[in-house]
Amino acid sequence: MAMSNAPLGVGLIGTGYMGKCHALAWNAVRAVFGDVARPRLEMLCETSDAYASARAAEFGFARATGDWRTLVSDPAVDVVSITTPNQFHAEMATAALEAGKHVWCEKPMAPAFADALAMNAAAEGSGRVAILGYNYIQNPAFREIARLVSEGAIGTPFQIRAEMDEDFMADPDTPFFWKNAASSGYGALDDFAVHPLSLIQRLFGRVERVFCDMAMPYATRTDEAGGQRAVETHDMANMLMRLEGGVQASLQVNRCAWGRKGRIALQIFGSKGAILFDQERMNEVELYRAEGDARQQGFARVLTGPQHPPYDRFVPAPGHGLGFNDLKVVECRELLHAIAGEPATVISFAEGIELERTVHAAARSFESGRWVEVAAVGG
Amino acid sequence: MAMSNAPLGVGLIGTGYMGKCHALAWNAVRAVFGDVARPRLEMLCETSDAYASARAAEFGFARATGDWRTLVSDPAVDVVSITTPNQFHAEMATAALEAGKHVWCEKPMAPAFADALAMNAAAEGSGRVAILGYNYIQNPAFREIARLVSEGAIGTPFQIRAEMDEDFMADPDTPFFWKNAASSGYGALDDFAVHPLSLIQRLFGRVERVFCDMAMPYATRTDEAGGQRAVETHDMANMLMRLEGGVQASLQVNRCAWGRKGRIALQIFGSKGAILFDQERMNEVELYRAEGDARQQGFARVLTGPQHPPYDRFVPAPGHGLGFNDLKVVECRELLHAIAGEPATVISFAEGIELERTVHAAARSFESGRWVEVAAVGG
Amino acid sequence: MAMSNAPLGVGLIGTGYMGKCHALAWNAVRAVFGDVARPRLEMLCETSDAYASARAAEFGFARATGDWRTLVSDPAVDVVSITTPNQFHAEMATAALEAGKHVWCEKPMAPAFADALAMNAAAEGSGRVAILGYNYIQNPAFREIARLVSEGAIGTPFQIRAEMDEDFMADPDTPFFWKNAASSGYGALDDFAVHPLSLIQRLFGRVERVFCDMAMPYATRTDEAGGQRAVETHDMANMLMRLEGGVQASLQVNRCAWGRKGRIALQIFGSKGAILFDQERMNEVELYRAEGDARQQGFARVLTGPQHPPYDRFVPAPGHGLGFNDLKVVECRELLHAIAGEPATVISFAEGIELERTVHAAARSFESGRWVEVAAVGG
Amino acid sequence: MAMSNAPLGVGLIGTGYMGKCHALAWNAVRAVFGDVARPRLEMLCETSDAYASARAAEFGFARATGDWRTLVSDPAVDVVSITTPNQFHAEMATAALEAGKHVWCEKPMAPAFADALAMNAAAEGSGRVAILGYNYIQNPAFREIARLVSEGAIGTPFQIRAEMDEDFMADPDTPFFWKNAASSGYGALDDFAVHPLSLIQRLFGRVERVFCDMAMPYATRTDEAGGQRAVETHDMANMLMRLEGGVQASLQVNRCAWGRKGRIALQIFGSKGAILFDQERMNEVELYRAEGDARQQGFARVLTGPQHPPYDRFVPAPGHGLGFNDLKVVECRELLHAIAGEPATVISFAEGIELERTVHAAARSFESGRWVEVAAVGG
Repeated sequence: MAMSNAPLGVGLIGTGYMGKCHALAWNAVRAVFGDVARPRLEMLCETSDAYASARAAEFGFARATGDWRTLVSDPAVDVVSITTPNQFHAEMATAALEAGKHVWCEKPMAPAFADALAMNAAAEGSGRVAILGYNYIQNPAFREIARLVSEGAIGTPFQIRAEMDEDFMADPDTPFFWKNAASSGYGALDDFAVHPLSLIQRLFGRVERVFCDMAMPYATRTDEAGGQRAVETHDMANMLMRLEGGVQASLQVNRCAWGRKGRIALQIFGSKGAILFDQERMNEVELYRAEGDARQQGFARVLTGPQHPPYDRFVPAPGHGLGFNDLKVVECRELLHAIAGEPATVISFAEGIELERTVHAAARSFESGRWVEVAAVGG
Repeated sequence: MAMSNAPLGVGLIGTGYMGKCHALAWNAVRAVFGDVARPRLEMLCETSDAYASARAAEFGFARATGDWRTLVSDPAVDVVSITTPNQFHAEMATAALEAGKHVWCEKPMAPAFADALAMNAAAEGSGRVAILGYNYIQNPAFREIARLVSEGAIGTPFQIRAEMDEDFMADPDTPFFWKNAASSGYGALDDFAVHPLSLIQRLFGRVERVFCDMAMPYATRTDEAGGQRAVETHDMANMLMRLEGGVQASLQVNRCAWGRKGRIALQIFGSKGAILFDQERMNEVELYRAEGDARQQGFARVLTGPQHPPYDRFVPAPGHGLGFNDLKVVECRELLHAIAGEPATVISFAEGIELERTVHAAARSFESGRWVEVAAVGG
Repeated sequence: MAMSNAPLGVGLIGTGYMGKCHALAWNAVRAVFGDVARPRLEMLCETSDAYASARAAEFGFARATGDWRTLVSDPAVDVVSITTPNQFHAEMATAALEAGKHVWCEKPMAPAFADALAMNAAAEGSGRVAILGYNYIQNPAFREIARLVSEGAIGTPFQIRAEMDEDFMADPDTPFFWKNAASSGYGALDDFAVHPLSLIQRLFGRVERVFCDMAMPYATRTDEAGGQRAVETHDMANMLMRLEGGVQASLQVNRCAWGRKGRIALQIFGSKGAILFDQERMNEVELYRAEGDARQQGFARVLTGPQHPPYDRFVPAPGHGLGFNDLKVVECRELLHAIAGEPATVISFAEGIELERTVHAAARSFESGRWVEVAAVGG
Repeated sequence: MAMSNAPLGVGLIGTGYMGKCHALAWNAVRAVFGDVARPRLEMLCETSDAYASARAAEFGFARATGDWRTLVSDPAVDVVSITTPNQFHAEMATAALEAGKHVWCEKPMAPAFADALAMNAAAEGSGRVAILGYNYIQNPAFREIARLVSEGAIGTPFQIRAEMDEDFMADPDTPFFWKNAASSGYGALDDFAVHPLSLIQRLFGRVERVFCDMAMPYATRTDEAGGQRAVETHDMANMLMRLEGGVQASLQVNRCAWGRKGRIALQIFGSKGAILFDQERMNEVELYRAEGDARQQGFARVLTGPQHPPYDRFVPAPGHGLGFNDLKVVECRELLHAIAGEPATVISFAEGIELERTVHAAARSFESGRWVEVAAVGG
């Protein structure tokens, strides 16, 4: 098995939004961090041999294939990036793990909870590292928030409010597409909620119970024939929660929120202060501490800098700003540390299961109009 | 009865936070607006004759009394400002209305819903004007929001998120006081929620159903003897709602929210745009319109100015800023218009009943863990 | 002469933007502060007897006149508010002072420096209080800034940047009007610069030398006949300065700054921190202190509250916000304290002379293209 | 000579802040953009062979050397990244150009203007591409600003205000170091000013004349022996300028500005609107347009997205944010386009000369206390 300083062979499946993001991370991780071996970019898989070859040249991979099974069974491949649509995750991840590969899979795990459970079972039996692409936990700003919370900077936390909003489905004239079909899942609930839930879970532990209301801004959308087709998923969901540590939580997600582009907002209140964050200004943390001269108290807008690791690995000067893609580079390095058996900040398949369990509990709550205990969702 | 241009005699009961605010409004309303007669400041009531006299001199009232019944029955008094603690509202308002006076009563109406209903019954039978002090609806910024919504600037609205937060109870070392006792009501739910509910109701109509979760940051507080006394009210409440127009709504209130001083935040999403507001920056409205060149779309921070009436009555230059007390001056003028039989922007006792009905429905929901239909709350 | 607790008789000349603002302040000052006697609103002067009478009724003044000399010589008048256009200030203020009245005159003092000097000479010889309406120094937020600076919260200050911008002349289609004529003064330099200079001088003392560049966005504007008339004043001015305490300063003023409505922005840098302020958000101060844990340092957005006097006299709750007109109420109270011989925060005619001297020095600098020593401007 | 699709051999001199930034860009440019050939990372030069080898391994370069002359004369090297301290730029760039290499040199060009001129002469005679690392012009947000200005979105521009501030020298206890010595240049003037000047020049053309004031916050700093040593450079500079298109400009730079980390702020005013920008929030542009309903006008906070190229090459979703290092990747791609003879957004040595000429003109102005015509600075 790969050691910390031995180069790993990488296989990448998929080159869309997240696939490119993985490719950039694999290219950059050694130069950015210095403390990991430069990975060998062994093989790239796309929907055809030809397209795979073109993308392999673009992303610097040595070989290409149109058959993902070829990739996951290739002896030179040690770790597999899975960035395909969600419905393929379970089969690919399971096969890769069974072939003895480490797996870096994009989230969420799978539309069906049973498939997610199967993925986790495969991971647990494999002895390999299997993590999910929850990159927002890698932001130096979020890591600082986690530090502040855990070190008591805001005292005992008692409430968190989270929101995740974008507007790519806000236009009523956008035609019906696959995210409007029930086959894609519940809607914003699984599309978005797992992201802020990953942050909440990192800070405060598991969700104990959840109440959920979902809504559809638009009942129908235009289909290809020019008619109206009924929308089957909910673009908006409001959730109330209680966490295992006793914290009261709420989460609101909306993919029809005009003007919001990449908002993941947190408000955390504790007995000695409060913390605010918004992913649209991902290099800032706002901190209020109820101490000292009352005339000078206010939310301090902290710009991240080298004092907030691993910002320093990217830029030595503070306030210059990391970008979204940089988060994936951090995640890639954490993966390499995990593979090397070192301490690492990752969300394993096991932790991912809890996020998805919460989502399914929320969906059940919406049906029943009652609180649902998350642990009651089987598996 | 008083006509639009005939001076009204004013009686003021109470000179605390809101009492002073009423006094300032009565002193200023004629000079600010010009279109109403200068009120005669007839009589002021406080807890003793001596204190009443001192405050009358300070606030420019001609006479003083330590007995509110003397005030409400005085023939020179046409309209009564009631600014005492909530538990006195019902008796005073009812007596004033029965004595043929108009009433301007601070909110909320009464701790017990039955008392609120009695107040409203008194108002309906009186033929007099009876309004509540929901001054936030008087902000030119909020009026602009109402105009934008009603004129379709953001298309069909489908979601509103509201928050109201302060931190005056955030310190765990603050001793037990009356707001911690069950006799004061539910906690933040009735202390705060009626304010943002007044805004929501103005924009979108009544709340149809509500789900509510409440929490206590601190289970006990220090009592006078230095021991610990159990807290009986909830400083935090999260509500999910559906409104009569079909809008999905949420409301979060917290009086232990460190760093928040006078936050009343709104996020309104519609099919063509979105609107943001925060009372801590009460002279600003943020508007996003999904039209024109996509490269130039963003939330526009609109500073209120003379183009947003009645800002122009206070300052002729834009962006110079109104203050909290100015809202009460507007409210006072609206009251005078209502008394004169002219169109006015006020929240009547009847409208206030609906706000309080929602609060009580929320409390029932918290007990039952289920949605509660607001109309099911009797009265 | 009037004592602290003896009511003063007030005469008001002018009822435009500032005249109304004075009237509101005279109406409110007693009720807001409690620690001053309620002024008697004796006489109001406007451009005709009839108009004066109408405005007197509106603003609560007992008598009215179309002749300002009648007002300044009225024996019941103790203090005169002068809110007429600048060219009348000198004559009116001098006459009032010579008649033994206290004077509250709007700024700037006079278009010609010689007239300003004459006003000051009249004040000095009178034994009366003579102050100017620089209300921005009365903002609790600014007072907090002054406290922070003087108490060393940001260490030794070494630089200040100030800006004042509005957009009421930004539209090129606005016809030629009196502010475009040379008879009105230099342009933005005297129209705006005295305001931020009043803040700078309060914080750091006199300006020692100044360099100035001025510019005209529009060379001509449409005249009444539909032709083009050459603009004679400069709507934009950039100034560099050195202050008597050694602080390096800059000031930029622009009345064609689209989007700016009431901006007066300050940035103050010192050896231990920095302070930011913008009048468009007049209830906020941003403070950066270079101390403690570097991971938590950032500009703290401090919302003013009762801990920032005299905010507490307006509202007992923090973060609720004062408005522009409230600043004039504070100024009025300070005037009353000054008249009573008590310590007061005011800008006297003598201090105003220094502000105007700086403006004239800047104009000379623009002509010569060199630094000008402010003290070299005669008088 | 290299063609657009032919891989170029890269030599990198220096691996500090900017050296690493170049290395990351060379590693990423092909994968991010797809439209350029993957560069061959041929040789890296550092201060010793051993260190060079270690860094070469880290950054993925094939060979290493401790002698930069070896690198610039290597036949496999087509383009040289020069990221050493400024005093080495001239010699290295000239040698590389004379050896027939393209050059990508960090800014500013050289402490002495004569050296900068020599560099430019070498470039002009070489037939090779020679550009400077002014990466802030590569920000999609800035490119959008340039588009808005050039397409008339704010009408005719008439004023720009620029500021660049950091705080890495703000602490008076920081010991004397090389940036405090006169040998390093003027201070903030050459350290910072060229950056915002590159933006100003891109938007509005050359600076015609300049006035400058400089100041030292701290006259001395602690030297190694524990004594006090006189500071020889100015950490603060304020400049007033006139641009060739008639625009009035100002620029303020400060490297002792507590709280500022990477601020490069722009305010641009024109006849129909205004634009604001701050590098600390590098993914946002604020745009005010004076058109349409006055009640809805305000600064729109535009988050960059795929509609602002080349943002789309990094992330397909809007509002997710680019980081500082991404700007260098864009710059690298522009360089490759320039080398291929395609249109490119770069700052050539010739354009860089004009930036440095302005800086030297400013220094002369500070000495003379007068406006200095930039063209009068020889060369």
